[in-house]
Order: sequence, then structure tokens, then C-alpha cells
Amino acid sequence: MTETVLSSATKEIVIGFDRPFCVIGERINPTGRKKLAAEMKEGDYSTLQADALAQVAAGATMLDVNAGIPLADEPKILADTIKLVQSLVDVPISIDSSIIDALESGLAAYQGRPLVNSVTGEDESLDRVLPLIKKYDCAVVAISNDETGISEDPDVRFEVAKKIVERAADYGIKSQDVVVDPLVMPIGAMGTAGRQVFALVRRLRDELKVNTTCGASNISFGLPNRRTLNGHFLSMAACAGMTSAIMNPLHEEDMNAIFAANVLNGVDRDCKNWVRKFREPIPEGAEGEGVNRRRDRENRRRRRA
Amino acid sequence: MTETVLSSATKEIVIGFDRPFCVIGERINPTGRKKLAAEMKEGDYSTLQADALAQVAAGATMLDVNAGIPLADEPKILADTIKLVQSLVDVPISIDSSIIDALESGLAAYQGRPLVNSVTGEDESLDRVLPLIKKYDCAVVAISNDETGISEDPDVRFEVAKKIVERAADYGIKSQDVVVDPLVMPIGAMGTAGRQVFALVRRLRDELKVNTTCGASNISFGLPNRRTLNGHFLSMAACAGMTSAIMNPLHEEDMNAIFAANVLNGVDRDCKNWVRKFREPIPEGAEGEGVNRRRDRENRRRRRA
Repeated sequence: MTETVLSSATKEIVIGFDRPFCVIGERINPTGRKKLAAEMKEGDYSTLQADALAQVAAGATMLDVNAGIPLADEPKILADTIKLVQSLVDVPISIDSSIIDALESGLAAYQGRPLVNSVTGEDESLDRVLPLIKKYDCAVVAISNDETGISEDPDVRFEVAKKIVERAADYGIKSQDVVVDPLVMPIGAMGTAGRQVFALVRRLRDELKVNTTCGASNISFGLPNRRTLNGHFLSMAACAGMTSAIMNPLHEEDMNAIFAANVLNGVDRDCKNWVRKFREPIPEGAEGEGVNRRRDRENRRRRRA
Repeated sequence: MTETVLSSATKEIVIGFDRPFCVIGERINPTGRKKLAAEMKEGDYSTLQADALAQVAAGATMLDVNAGIPLADEPKILADTIKLVQSLVDVPISIDSSIIDALESGLAAYQGRPLVNSVTGEDESLDRVLPLIKKYDCAVVAISNDETGISEDPDVRFEVAKKIVERAADYGIKSQDVVVDPLVMPIGAMGTAGRQVFALVRRLRDELKVNTTCGASNISFGLPNRRTLNGHFLSMAACAGMTSAIMNPLHEEDMNAIFAANVLNGVDRDCKNWVRKFREPIPEGAEGEGVNRRRDRENRRRRRA
């Protein structure tokens, strides 16, 4: 049974094959958000606080926290941000940095068992990040690229993931604490990007028995109506076996996809979360044909009874 | 290569693993549509004509035609309806009846190579429908239930499908002309209904090498927000390998799911259909964060250039 157990000071969550999909909120990240970056650099955390609260209210299972601001003291800002977020919300955090000192500072400040985002298949990354994962007994996102870059060949990406899982084992880190990101390419540039990810996720699950994650919105880069495409990418990835994603829980179509995937994968027991989210009476006529309207009326009556 | 080739008098379509998902429009069916049933019985085909045109305009690859009206002359009405629909639209037809005389009458009236909906695993059905499929050299929907009813055990449903494919082979009907319906249960009543269908579709594709179809909307029976759930069921089923569905092409969420699934399964070459459908400029601000807005603007500029 593959279960990645993560926690805050007061709350434990599990990423797993038979668990509801883990939504990792992506908003606390100054990359490409000029206003947020400037605020964080000045120690103004008002936007960030609002983002943390809004994402958890929208259903985030975890929050990714990134403090990558050029020419700023990232180790300090990351630690401060983590402390602040942990004082506001009780979900576990994914500590997101490419700088080792920042990761270490974030880990030292964190209360609970976090996810570290990320290690790659590059030897330097493995040698520096994995000892931290062992030291702090936490879990890590493994990105399936190495010194040669991101391969367009999914078999190569699988081998890189395998290498990371094996190297982690050398440090005494269990495979269930390695969450693999198979890397999502923009499908507008590479028509096989979706199929590749779906096939990779299945292999990673069946052969390496690991949980998986991804930065979901990359799939739709450059295309119109990104929200709808992202939503179906998420539910299709969940159908292929993906167990988490770094995504924007404030996007309604993304969250609808996750709620639907949980129902259809049989991990929303008795459809309770679906019914709670959508049980508002549907306006008469909105469901089209008479037979559906009747069913919906009966259904509402049954629920009220 | 599994390819189910169907045609009208002038147009050929192919259901296949590397083909765009085949949308079989479900609207021409008097079951549960009192007004349509009354009209068809009186020989008034105005609603039916509008339904045929609207479904094809909305993107239906084929149309299902059912004339099952209690106490009416189904063989005659089905043949008349088929002739009428073939005079209006050029997509192939799925001839839908549980009455052998009606199927035979519909087949005699049809121009091209139709799909027959359906045969079951019951001996009486096999013995009466399969000779017709052979005689008219067409394809058939195989519903995976038998004399014992619909099994809740997906292994039993797989065995029923296998039996139908084998029995068809005895008549000289190729497996590529058998499109299996693994049967979709309401997930509100049976929490494993989604997983079962996804697993069955994969097995039917990998082991029996057959195309698959289903009545998609059954999955959401009794639940609120059926449209969103149906849409994600369709894209997830397509991810699992389903190649067609009997569905309502007038439902926007269903069709969006199909367009997205075609992109993500890599069968909408260069995302052409997606871009054609959604390239209308997005209102400023609708995409949220600046980085996305900028990308969308650049994207629009690139498209215009």
C-alpha cells in the first residue's frame, strides 16, 4: 500500500491510490506575480495571507509555498512565510525551492511532516536534497529530468524516476515518500504530451508503486480555453492513476474536475462531497428533458426527507 | 488495428483506438419523450428533423435512431425515420431497437453500412441478431448482459462480452465489427461503477481488441450537477480507452469533454478542432493572473499573424 503521510502541527493527510486526490494549492509563489514578489520582499504578507485562506477554503488539501524572489533573502523569507502560513491554516505544506539553504531553513521552521519540492535526477540535486529528506524524515517531489534535461522520450523519464527512487532507498528513504512528477509538456507544442503522461503515471504506479504529482496547467500553455482543458487533463490524469497535482484551487473548473474524479474513481464515499458541493436546487428547466427534471425533483425530495 | 468502419450513402467514419472519439447522438429516441413519441406515431417528424440537424451541427459523428413507441408499428416508423434522417444529414446511423422485425426493416431501408444497437449475450438475441449483422455486413453494439441479467462483477461482464465476440466470429463477423458496451451503472447506487467501467474498457481494448461504447449519462443518475459529472466521466472513459459513446451532443459540457479528450489523447491533430472551437478572444481579465492574460494575448497575436 503506497501512502505518503504528511502533516502540519495538528493535521495529517495521506496521498494514496485509494485516497481522494490531493490538491496542492500553487498560489503562494512569487514567480510571475510581481505584486506578490514586491510585497514579500518588503515583509508585507497581506496578499499571501489572503491566498492561503482562500485556497484552503476552496478545498486545497495542502499548500505549496515558494519564496523565490531574485536578490532577496530566500532562506529567511521562506521560513517566515512557512511560519505565517502554519499560523493561519492547518493543512500540510509543500516547501518549494531550488536553493538548498532555503529548503533547510524552511524545514527547520516547519512544524509537522512536510513535502519537499523538489529533487531532480541530477547527481548534485540528489546528493544535496536527499540527505535533508532523511534528516527531517519527510517526503519529496521527484522531478524526472537529469543533467541531459527533460527527455521527450517517456521511457527515459521513467528511468530517471526509477534512479531517484533507488538513490532515495540508498539513503533509507522509502519509495512511498517519493512523489514522482513525470513532467507535463504543453500539448500545443507536442501532441503526444497527454498520452505520455497518462502512460507514465500508470507505469509509475504499477511498476515503481509511487504516488505522482504534476504542475497541471502547463498542459494547456498557448491554447485557448485553458481552464476547460486543464480540468479534463486533471480528471483524465486521475483516471490514469495520478494521486496529486500542484494546481490552482481557486479555478472552479479544476476543482470540479477533482470532485468528479473522486466520485468516478470511487474515493468520494457515497458521493458525499459531491452532493454537499452541488445539492443546491437546480432551476426548473435547466436539466433539459422532462425525465431528467423529474429525477432531479425526486432526488431533491429524497434528500430533504 | 481495430477499426469499425461505418457509412451513410456518402460519408464514411471510423471508430478506432487512434481516432477522434465517436459521438453517437442519442436524441432521436421517443423513450421518455412523450411529445416526440406522439408526433412520431402520427407521422409528424418535425421535432425529429430539428433534432437530427441540431445534433450534427453540434458535432455528432453518428446518430442513434430509435422508434420504440408502445402500440405503434415500429418496423414501419423505424424505416421511415431512417429514410428521413438519411435525407437530412450525411452521418452514419446506429439503428436502435430490441425488436428483430424493426431491425430488419431498418436495415433494409438503410443506405450504407450502419451500426446495429444492439445484441446481448442472451442466446435468443445472439441467434436472431447476429445473422442479420452477417447478412447486411454491418457492425453491432454488444451489451454485456445475458440471461442472468447485468452482473455487478466486471469479470462476468467481460466474459459475456467475450462470448458475444466469439459467437459473432462463428458467423464470420470480425471482432472489429463488435462494439462492446460494458454497461454503466449509476455511481450514486454503486460507488465502484466508474472504476469498473474504466478497468473493463482497458481489458476489452487490450485483451479482446474491440471498440467500446456506452450510454454515458446513466453514471450520474440520481445525483446533482449531472452535466459536470457526465462530462468528466466521458473524458475519463476516453482516457481509459473508450472510443465512442451514446450521448447528447447538445449538452455543452459533454461536447467540451470530448473535444478536450481528443486533444489530450493526441487525436486532435495540432489541436486544430480545439482552436477552431475556442479561438474567440477571451474577455480581458477572465483568465485571472497577469501571466495567463499575457500568454493569451500573445497567443491571439500569434494566431492573427
